[in-house]
Amino acid sequence: MTAPMLPSYVAGRWYTAPDEGTPVADAVTGETVVRVSSTGLDVPAMLDHARSVGGPALRELTFHQRGALLKQLGLRLMADKDAFYALSRRTGCTDRDTAVDVDGGFGTLLSYASKARRELPDDTVVLDGAPEPLGRGGTFLGQHLYTPLRGVAVQVNAFNFPVWGFLEKFAPAFLAGVPTVVKPGSQTAYLTEAVVRSIVDSGLLPEGSLQLLAGSAAGVLDGLAGQDLVFFTGSASTARKLRSHPAVVANSVRFNAEADSLNCAVLGPDATPDTPEFGLFVDQLVTEMTVKAGQKCTAIRRALVPRELVDDVVEATRAALAEVVVGAPGAEGVTMGALASLDQRQEVLRAVKALRGVADLVAGDPDDFSVVGADRDRGAFLPPMLLRCDDLSAGEPHDVEAFGPVSTVLPYDGVAHAVELAARGQGSLVGSIVTHDPAVAREFVLGAAHSHGRVLVLDRDDAGENTGHGSPLPVLVHGGPGRAGGGEELGGIRGVLHHMQRTAVQGSPDMLTTIGGRWVTGAQRRDDGVHPFRKSLAELRIGDSVTAGPRAVTLADIEHFAEFTGDTFYAHMDEAAAAANPLFGGRVAHGYLIVSWAAGLFVDPDPGPVLANYGVDALRFLTPVKPGAELTVTLTCKQITPRGGAEHGEVRWDAVVVDGDGKPVATYDVLTMVAKTWPPAADPS
Amino acid sequence: MTAPMLPSYVAGRWYTAPDEGTPVADAVTGETVVRVSSTGLDVPAMLDHARSVGGPALRELTFHQRGALLKQLGLRLMADKDAFYALSRRTGCTDRDTAVDVDGGFGTLLSYASKARRELPDDTVVLDGAPEPLGRGGTFLGQHLYTPLRGVAVQVNAFNFPVWGFLEKFAPAFLAGVPTVVKPGSQTAYLTEAVVRSIVDSGLLPEGSLQLLAGSAAGVLDGLAGQDLVFFTGSASTARKLRSHPAVVANSVRFNAEADSLNCAVLGPDATPDTPEFGLFVDQLVTEMTVKAGQKCTAIRRALVPRELVDDVVEATRAALAEVVVGAPGAEGVTMGALASLDQRQEVLRAVKALRGVADLVAGDPDDFSVVGADRDRGAFLPPMLLRCDDLSAGEPHDVEAFGPVSTVLPYDGVAHAVELAARGQGSLVGSIVTHDPAVAREFVLGAAHSHGRVLVLDRDDAGENTGHGSPLPVLVHGGPGRAGGGEELGGIRGVLHHMQRTAVQGSPDMLTTIGGRWVTGAQRRDDGVHPFRKSLAELRIGDSVTAGPRAVTLADIEHFAEFTGDTFYAHMDEAAAAANPLFGGRVAHGYLIVSWAAGLFVDPDPGPVLANYGVDALRFLTPVKPGAELTVTLTCKQITPRGGAEHGEVRWDAVVVDGDGKPVATYDVLTMVAKTWPPAADPS
Repeated sequence: MTAPMLPSYVAGRWYTAPDEGTPVADAVTGETVVRVSSTGLDVPAMLDHARSVGGPALRELTFHQRGALLKQLGLRLMADKDAFYALSRRTGCTDRDTAVDVDGGFGTLLSYASKARRELPDDTVVLDGAPEPLGRGGTFLGQHLYTPLRGVAVQVNAFNFPVWGFLEKFAPAFLAGVPTVVKPGSQTAYLTEAVVRSIVDSGLLPEGSLQLLAGSAAGVLDGLAGQDLVFFTGSASTARKLRSHPAVVANSVRFNAEADSLNCAVLGPDATPDTPEFGLFVDQLVTEMTVKAGQKCTAIRRALVPRELVDDVVEATRAALAEVVVGAPGAEGVTMGALASLDQRQEVLRAVKALRGVADLVAGDPDDFSVVGADRDRGAFLPPMLLRCDDLSAGEPHDVEAFGPVSTVLPYDGVAHAVELAARGQGSLVGSIVTHDPAVAREFVLGAAHSHGRVLVLDRDDAGENTGHGSPLPVLVHGGPGRAGGGEELGGIRGVLHHMQRTAVQGSPDMLTTIGGRWVTGAQRRDDGVHPFRKSLAELRIGDSVTAGPRAVTLADIEHFAEFTGDTFYAHMDEAAAAANPLFGGRVAHGYLIVSWAAGLFVDPDPGPVLANYGVDALRFLTPVKPGAELTVTLTCKQITPRGGAEHGEVRWDAVVVDGDGKPVATYDVLTMVAKTWPPAADPS
Repeated sequence: MTAPMLPSYVAGRWYTAPDEGTPVADAVTGETVVRVSSTGLDVPAMLDHARSVGGPALRELTFHQRGALLKQLGLRLMADKDAFYALSRRTGCTDRDTAVDVDGGFGTLLSYASKARRELPDDTVVLDGAPEPLGRGGTFLGQHLYTPLRGVAVQVNAFNFPVWGFLEKFAPAFLAGVPTVVKPGSQTAYLTEAVVRSIVDSGLLPEGSLQLLAGSAAGVLDGLAGQDLVFFTGSASTARKLRSHPAVVANSVRFNAEADSLNCAVLGPDATPDTPEFGLFVDQLVTEMTVKAGQKCTAIRRALVPRELVDDVVEATRAALAEVVVGAPGAEGVTMGALASLDQRQEVLRAVKALRGVADLVAGDPDDFSVVGADRDRGAFLPPMLLRCDDLSAGEPHDVEAFGPVSTVLPYDGVAHAVELAARGQGSLVGSIVTHDPAVAREFVLGAAHSHGRVLVLDRDDAGENTGHGSPLPVLVHGGPGRAGGGEELGGIRGVLHHMQRTAVQGSPDMLTTIGGRWVTGAQRRDDGVHPFRKSLAELRIGDSVTAGPRAVTLADIEHFAEFTGDTFYAHMDEAAAAANPLFGGRVAHGYLIVSWAAGLFVDPDPGPVLANYGVDALRFLTPVKPGAELTVTLTCKQITPRGGAEHGEVRWDAVVVDGDGKPVATYDVLTMVAKTWPPAADPS
């Protein structure tokens, strides 16, 4: 019986290539799982569908709406995960490995959903930074904002994370409003296809926001233009090829590469065998060597160890590796599965051979090891292999990546030397240091940061919650300079913004207010005689304002407030001492008194749509307030953020308190919760 | 007499090539000004000098120190500017043109100096965002931070802005701590050389932070590695070549291109000839056509006009262009100078010829125009030329850039159509709209932002301060997607960060506090019995803290505060109404009362090093406080920012108020000014 042809999802339909295709083997048994081909697939139609159907549909939604869809999708997929686990075993993965890929991928959707709700507006535009004054008169300002690119994000993925590697790129693109075409690594594409099918079947996402290209990537970059993006994960040599593709170069296509790197883990000089850190280091090294059979871009390839501790580390690691059971995922006792393919095993063996030219193999023998529950010669099995290189002049440990269960121990002398060795990787995705000495951590981290996208510090204090050297997290950036590809993905909202165009907008305060949807100082205020606290979200408009006051400030008030609150700071109580203060030159009112009075002036006391003041941002006291001053406050509706699924939303108010001369004495933002309607709609239930 | 050879500044010495070189002609007279050659220049030594001398010296300085040097440098150069003006005339520039280049360049240094002081820490690391919790227990967090790349920033510049084009790239690189090699456009390199010489002679900058490569750029990219950067300004075709250079591609060198683009200016449908906006549009168009003889990447190439106003615009522009006097800079009445070279003139004529295939030349005749004070055939003169294209199917107006005093008027029908035409430029540096209608502005700006780096709105309200379509500003990003090169420069601190590596650091709160220099929640606090308000900046340490309380909350207190401040909001005063509030469920204390009390608890009343509380950031009320609660506050020193040249610095304190159960009720940052020493050092004068 012929194995089935893996279909692609193209322009709203599943497409199956008519030819024989290329067989993909089960990593454990060698049986053919599927065949893969993109022959006859209409790539230009795919790009056009993304741009003309997917993009417009996505851009209709706000960030909160897109986030809500990601959340539903993540929960739906998580509920179905058993099917993906079963399929993942065929790629050589144990269930521990699959958790990283499958749960990690679905968790990324949920993380982005949560970030969208908490950190992005319920809008389609992201404002970047505060308005920039561009003239002294205040009539001309700049405001940076982000809008979605109107192209398509093309993913060209590696075989090792068929689920996470796809979803960690998809989630930020979707949230940004940019449709995705995913081209998985063929070796494990059937698992990506299963997830895409599950997504399509869910019907949750707007049509055109996701398409699948199973088979060869040839031609997919030809049609790219200036609003498109490429996100590549894989080898440095393929990165080079794609990066210099004529369409990418000619159209300034955003190109993000994340390539394998020679990541290091450093054992701190303080982490002697009698400390908890020593054991943590060895455990982490063994984990990184064996999870996914070491097929992780972030795995530890170089273990940098204080020269005097090298023997101890080698010994302890060897002992721990001896406990590893290699075999068929799911078979009794198996703790490490197969590599993804026989080709991949050959690649690793070639790299190990190169490393053995300068290093000794101190644990693991590729020609002599046991495999449980599978035929060793049909599956892509290897034992974990530890090398030791005492020759620091050798380039191989810093250059040759064995993309499998392989790591090399190298000696170092002093933290500065460890920093230097770390940088010999020419740019890495991640480095880690295991130390309980903050000074050591600071020296290593600040010294090595320039050549790393992520640096992890592991010690007894964070070991219980530490997610480990090899785990990129959705809220932290993932990528690295130089050898690691020079890219940056994830990092929470940072990863979303990579899919958007930042534009500086210049204009008058009124124009910027209308364009950005946030009231800008100098723009018109509207006082229609109705106190804005009497307006529900449905009625309130940006620019609605109230001015209240004046309230006279007396010395008696200041003294009374001091006594009542206990804040008897000399600047409020002692005329001579206050006069000597270089900033005050005399007794002044408390800052907290000024804002308390301001609230007393602008608050509308009766029950109404404004439910609570939940905070204050960016409060600055600009001019000392002395007895005799008269204070007036103006509150202006600055930004309105409705909450999907809630009865209320958030309203940010611009507050400015001025003295009798109109000089600002305090400026701040007041944050309130406001009901969507008032009186509240009757509960329909 | 042979014209002098223009030297390069290489590894701390001036280098003069031994060969004949290439002559550079005066744009006005055709005389040879200098010869240019980089023959024999040791480019690898240059890169090595930058990396091994310039970089380390720069990284020794804090952002504030680097900013202070930029300020001194800017003031020094500004004082010498007459010499640069004289030289600039030889490039064809009128004094108005030179102001954009020379004053614009020096002003960029001053703008960055100011941004450094106000927006960067007095440190060598920039923290990016808040700590990210990575576990529920609070023992493991992430913090993003930026450190300088350890390579060299290579500028490959265009001929049109020999001063600004160099300094707008240099300022952010220097501030980031990255050394620069500048390769100016040969045609005007003598003006760049004069400025570099002035900088070198000033002795202000650390050796190695700036080098000059006059002559061919050949070979300069060959030695680039993963920590280096290229900033290119020039043609799209050269951008393509440099971007796909093998060393750039192989090492993921950061490559930023800023290429000429087909920028548009839109006349709003409301801006009929009887409105001020009509005149503003025509004035802006004429200005952009004639400043620098139109040799600006940001000039208006396409004037998009409502179909029914095209005749009016053409007529008014033709009339205004008739007033333009072309000739030798400085000659009587001259308002537009020469192009930079005869070659450049030929290029423009070729482009105009292509445009005339689809458009009518309605103003300016290249074969018949007057030149004042110079020989028309020896200088690179052209008249301003306006074209009109009514054929919207023609591609040329959107594709062919005439890099000179040339613009094309095109008709549009409705704002959506203007957006569509704007995008046909395939990505532009800037677009502008002249309208007094905020709805029109919003539709155009949000519609066109994805294909623009900057969008300007001009109307009667901002006209007096508006800096104009063609002027990039140091505080706003400069660059654009697609055809414009896909780059981003400037934008204040954004431009600095492009020269730094962003790294996610993971660890325990104590580790992150030590590494980042900012106290992180969960890290150790130190209470040594001395109130931290009694410590000067010299004595204070991050983590120094004081805990004070408890203070009991009574209903009488709440009512008293309400009456005293006037804040009689029902949630404080009316039990029944407060009980109905979905967030409170009963009477609560005022938020402002809680922070006032907290200050009363933590303040140390006597004169001391803490001079003032100048603000509060990120105040959040987390739990309603009801009568009977007991409040305790802990204040912890979070961040210390000394101010160079001042007697004080800024201290940010973490404040957390908890109730009797230890539940946080309010969190915020308190900002104070603290004296560097206490008692203050005697004035030495």
